[in-house]
Amino acid sequence: MIIIMHDGASEKAIKDVENRLLQFGFQTHPIYGERKTVIGAIGDKRQIRMNEILLMDGVENVVPIMRPYKLASKELKQEKTAIDVGCGVTIGGDTLAVFAGPCAVESREHFLKMSRLVKASGANILRGGAFKPRTSPYAFGGLEGEGLKIMREAGDELNMPICTEVMDTRDVELVAEYADIIQIGARNMQNFKLLREVGSCKKPILLKRGLASTIEEWLMAAEYIMSEGNDDVILCERGIRTYETSTRNTFDVSAIPVTQNLTHLPIIADPSHATGNYKYVAAVARAGVAAGADGIMIEVHDCPECAASDGPQSLKPERFDELMRQLKKIANAIDKEIGLC
Amino acid sequence: MIIIMHDGASEKAIKDVENRLLQFGFQTHPIYGERKTVIGAIGDKRQIRMNEILLMDGVENVVPIMRPYKLASKELKQEKTAIDVGCGVTIGGDTLAVFAGPCAVESREHFLKMSRLVKASGANILRGGAFKPRTSPYAFGGLEGEGLKIMREAGDELNMPICTEVMDTRDVELVAEYADIIQIGARNMQNFKLLREVGSCKKPILLKRGLASTIEEWLMAAEYIMSEGNDDVILCERGIRTYETSTRNTFDVSAIPVTQNLTHLPIIADPSHATGNYKYVAAVARAGVAAGADGIMIEVHDCPECAASDGPQSLKPERFDELMRQLKKIANAIDKEIGLC
Amino acid sequence: MIIIMHDGASEKAIKDVENRLLQFGFQTHPIYGERKTVIGAIGDKRQIRMNEILLMDGVENVVPIMRPYKLASKELKQEKTAIDVGCGVTIGGDTLAVFAGPCAVESREHFLKMSRLVKASGANILRGGAFKPRTSPYAFGGLEGEGLKIMREAGDELNMPICTEVMDTRDVELVAEYADIIQIGARNMQNFKLLREVGSCKKPILLKRGLASTIEEWLMAAEYIMSEGNDDVILCERGIRTYETSTRNTFDVSAIPVTQNLTHLPIIADPSHATGNYKYVAAVARAGVAAGADGIMIEVHDCPECAASDGPQSLKPERFDELMRQLKKIANAIDKEIGLC
Amino acid sequence: MIIIMHDGASEKAIKDVENRLLQFGFQTHPIYGERKTVIGAIGDKRQIRMNEILLMDGVENVVPIMRPYKLASKELKQEKTAIDVGCGVTIGGDTLAVFAGPCAVESREHFLKMSRLVKASGANILRGGAFKPRTSPYAFGGLEGEGLKIMREAGDELNMPICTEVMDTRDVELVAEYADIIQIGARNMQNFKLLREVGSCKKPILLKRGLASTIEEWLMAAEYIMSEGNDDVILCERGIRTYETSTRNTFDVSAIPVTQNLTHLPIIADPSHATGNYKYVAAVARAGVAAGADGIMIEVHDCPECAASDGPQSLKPERFDELMRQLKKIANAIDKEIGLC
Repeated sequence: MIIIMHDGASEKAIKDVENRLLQFGFQTHPIYGERKTVIGAIGDKRQIRMNEILLMDGVENVVPIMRPYKLASKELKQEKTAIDVGCGVTIGGDTLAVFAGPCAVESREHFLKMSRLVKASGANILRGGAFKPRTSPYAFGGLEGEGLKIMREAGDELNMPICTEVMDTRDVELVAEYADIIQIGARNMQNFKLLREVGSCKKPILLKRGLASTIEEWLMAAEYIMSEGNDDVILCERGIRTYETSTRNTFDVSAIPVTQNLTHLPIIADPSHATGNYKYVAAVARAGVAAGADGIMIEVHDCPECAASDGPQSLKPERFDELMRQLKKIANAIDKEIGLC
Repeated sequence: MIIIMHDGASEKAIKDVENRLLQFGFQTHPIYGERKTVIGAIGDKRQIRMNEILLMDGVENVVPIMRPYKLASKELKQEKTAIDVGCGVTIGGDTLAVFAGPCAVESREHFLKMSRLVKASGANILRGGAFKPRTSPYAFGGLEGEGLKIMREAGDELNMPICTEVMDTRDVELVAEYADIIQIGARNMQNFKLLREVGSCKKPILLKRGLASTIEEWLMAAEYIMSEGNDDVILCERGIRTYETSTRNTFDVSAIPVTQNLTHLPIIADPSHATGNYKYVAAVARAGVAAGADGIMIEVHDCPECAASDGPQSLKPERFDELMRQLKKIANAIDKEIGLC
Repeated sequence: MIIIMHDGASEKAIKDVENRLLQFGFQTHPIYGERKTVIGAIGDKRQIRMNEILLMDGVENVVPIMRPYKLASKELKQEKTAIDVGCGVTIGGDTLAVFAGPCAVESREHFLKMSRLVKASGANILRGGAFKPRTSPYAFGGLEGEGLKIMREAGDELNMPICTEVMDTRDVELVAEYADIIQIGARNMQNFKLLREVGSCKKPILLKRGLASTIEEWLMAAEYIMSEGNDDVILCERGIRTYETSTRNTFDVSAIPVTQNLTHLPIIADPSHATGNYKYVAAVARAGVAAGADGIMIEVHDCPECAASDGPQSLKPERFDELMRQLKKIANAIDKEIGLC
Repeated sequence: MIIIMHDGASEKAIKDVENRLLQFGFQTHPIYGERKTVIGAIGDKRQIRMNEILLMDGVENVVPIMRPYKLASKELKQEKTAIDVGCGVTIGGDTLAVFAGPCAVESREHFLKMSRLVKASGANILRGGAFKPRTSPYAFGGLEGEGLKIMREAGDELNMPICTEVMDTRDVELVAEYADIIQIGARNMQNFKLLREVGSCKKPILLKRGLASTIEEWLMAAEYIMSEGNDDVILCERGIRTYETSTRNTFDVSAIPVTQNLTHLPIIADPSHATGNYKYVAAVARAGVAAGADGIMIEVHDCPECAASDGPQSLKPERFDELMRQLKKIANAIDKEIGLC
């Protein structure tokens, strides 16, 4: 931790800061510049509240040296984490994870039909919403428990892991019973109670980036889950909020190399929610794979105009199939493979 | 709803859209321009999923005419809502609500001391955190149930309503038992399960604007609560996320007149969380009152450098007292009063 | 400057960085932590390109200690700058500057009429556009030279300073001949050639904040002007670009106290361009004054629906008059005065 | 144009709006809903100022139906524009344009060396800065005229087109004399005088997206250039300003398919300025190509730590060479070619 003193901070102010740091067990290293004094402090910052120093007389700023997350950090663990999500699928290795399925589970028949189609095109994980976060209280909220059972049946029939969202601490146990991967949606990325709750599950967690979260906040959310003992966190970039309105969100493609530089956790790309528009999904999916993502998540629906939710961003099965062919070539171009179950 | 067809959309495409609209009970009014055709559709848009039309052949865009929220809308209710929060305090009238207190309830003694001080300066509602959302899993999370009891004691002693946050659906009943006003924090503004849960409480809800929520999304969150039967929603502008880093968030002062133009619900300003820095709190508090807010919420602590959370944005009691004097004059300048219990 | 080395940077890497710093005349102060080494460097950072250090082996980050602007900084000059703009008007003292007038100079008659009206209500500086930046190439671009003459005539008749924008280096001389205050518009805040050009004028410069500029970039733009010898820079907050679309821009009211903390230059508020909507102008103007701005700039038009530009954000003269009455009371509440010529 | 009237707008207000529209030569088509009336207006909106209608009594909103740009629009011209930039290089066809070179032209020797290297790796256009926009007035501003001559020499020697930025209307003639492609930088995207000036050149223009420009504003800037008679505009996505600070800007990869949907103009990707960090340049370059960009622009420097500007984002020649190999495979995966001179 580096403490930067104001121009002309008094001798007394500098001494007071040093004494406070020493009391807390830090070693201090003051550096006297022509105009400013800076104090280097060595020790464990968790022992002290930075604010306590920041608000002392004469202090201009406190610069942390260590990152605020530890378990999620590459400093702790250099080698990349590969997560076994069941049915022989691993996320974080050389084979891309391809999550596909309709936005919401609408009926048993429909979900089974979509599942078979996406598997045939090369998807290796099924996605679908049983509990749906909706901006309007008047919109369809999902089949809930019934939806979970339908997904499980499809997963079992096709030998594919299933991934679905949980929104309420009270539902975690239920969802964990059915799902292979539990999703924390963008709106709940800082629902800290929910993070703690899924942190004590034994299932891998897909952690979507918050609507307007920094990468640091996202990794802190992963840290919440990991601090409860669950190390199997998969990050998912799904677009961030910006001033640009031609897409629903702005897909932050740089987040892929940036997180890979900071954490050992795998990251996948969700072009469907990022763009909100089927016309742009294929281009952004290709971009995500080319940038080095460990997988992608695509919404597929055979009748987007009658989808219970998110129709405008859903690909029809034939377009998904075509996209998978392109992705295969792109993956090969960077020495990866598209996962086939 | 207005349907805008692409340049050169075929006769057939136009007819198909009209037929679909007619099936759903809309009246249609096509307008044929030189290059584009536009179809006006009259009826209740809740009967139809806009996406169904948006994805039809030849459709370029669908423009809704009605706002997506109803109960929260000024179209439904012209006169401003004034909410009785107990102890003779009303939010939404000519007297400003002044919420004050420490960020977190730290101990019985400390909270009582702070409460007496803020009351003496003119606050009329006590605020404090018993359940604290924290970015780091390693930070202090609040005294929880114990904190609620301490707040209740202070409220009773001073005859002031108390306001505190709930973060988990499982805690709503408990918090509702103690608090006079239940706060939904910025990070939970789209925690829809929690919104529904507090919607079935009989207590007024303070709904903070989400970290990066539009005003429309914020009013939709209010609609969630109201759709469960709880009409007593108080909006709270607490700064939005922007690219500017010199303050923690950017206080969106225009949100005050904008919401007053769209909704009958009262709105208060929270300059402490907006700026994250005590140096700027007074200026932004004055701005909020001058812009016409129905109240303010200020964090006050007698020893910011030892506060359990948010010390850097807390005002010392003497600065809060000074601010209250300024706010009184500003309120008077626009024909309002500062609320004294 | 503080150099933060990576975890486990080698002895050699640390030595190499020190040697480079020593070569450049810095004194170095390495601090060896348990995991990271940090090097404090004392000297004049302008002698060295920070990048040169940032890209050396083993370097994680370089943290500057000094701010990048000097002449604009409060560290250089503590007392606030008050700028005499002619006709007895000073900006930066206890009397508020009130810039008012139509967006564009439309005709001699109209401008004179508007000028007399705004003066009667208490404005003390005339504003108007002779050269107009327009998003569309097909929109009205201003009366140019003719507009300047009209403004000068109005200023002379009413004994008021006039403020108008320059957009092209080739027009600076001409504008400087007529105007008392030269405006750099938001879109040109980083038009560095233009900044240099007005920096060598002898006229005060009104520097609008860029559409999406940080406060630091804004002060760097002021530094450009000042580095050419012109110290009379007036900052103008006019809203920043955010994701919120209910106002044209988001008025960053915190920028007022933040800049006052960083620079000695005066700052005014422009609620007209910030909101883009006459309905919100009065509330935001009051907020700006209450937050401590040194002045405001308001667009006034007697027939907004026939204005050549920016009609929707223009106040009618009677509403401007009403606003001036409110502002007078708010100014008094914080011990300032509204300027009357 | 669609005019949406307020709930309960009076008969008179509706008639007044219709009459005004009729006066301006529009045909009107009122649609009376249960609560709101909507008026469809057919005609050429350029004949009327939308504001004139927007501010009339009873009007809630005016929704334009036509896009504000015409020449740049796909509605005007369906087939993609391919621009011949000299030396046999075309931008907008099946061969990718690869602009490469150092950020600034530093010396004749250095530029020639870099040029030969990037050509050897497969670049087909040389880039370099002779006039440099710099945030600090104390930073290196470029070799100006001398730099132009050096670039021309390199272009002639290697038979490659050269691209360089112009910042001042007074320099357009000079730059046009030397350059094959004239760049308008992000900070000047709305420097309308400069846009008009390059619009009357006969050289292709590379138009960078503004720091925080919407795609619509960007296309309006292209329209400015085209409205002066120069149709050869190449768009360049270089990252937008968002709240995320781990990269300098956020590369908006969706802008590639979005612009391709709206305009016939070609678009290239600039990952160097978008990320500001060499570590992320390759991933974002691959993403841009995979998303379908017509080319890329990469900064290359043999000694990034001694570069006169933008060293941290420059690739060393060997890394650029490696990247080109990857890009070749990615281009092939989507049926394009990497351009070799």
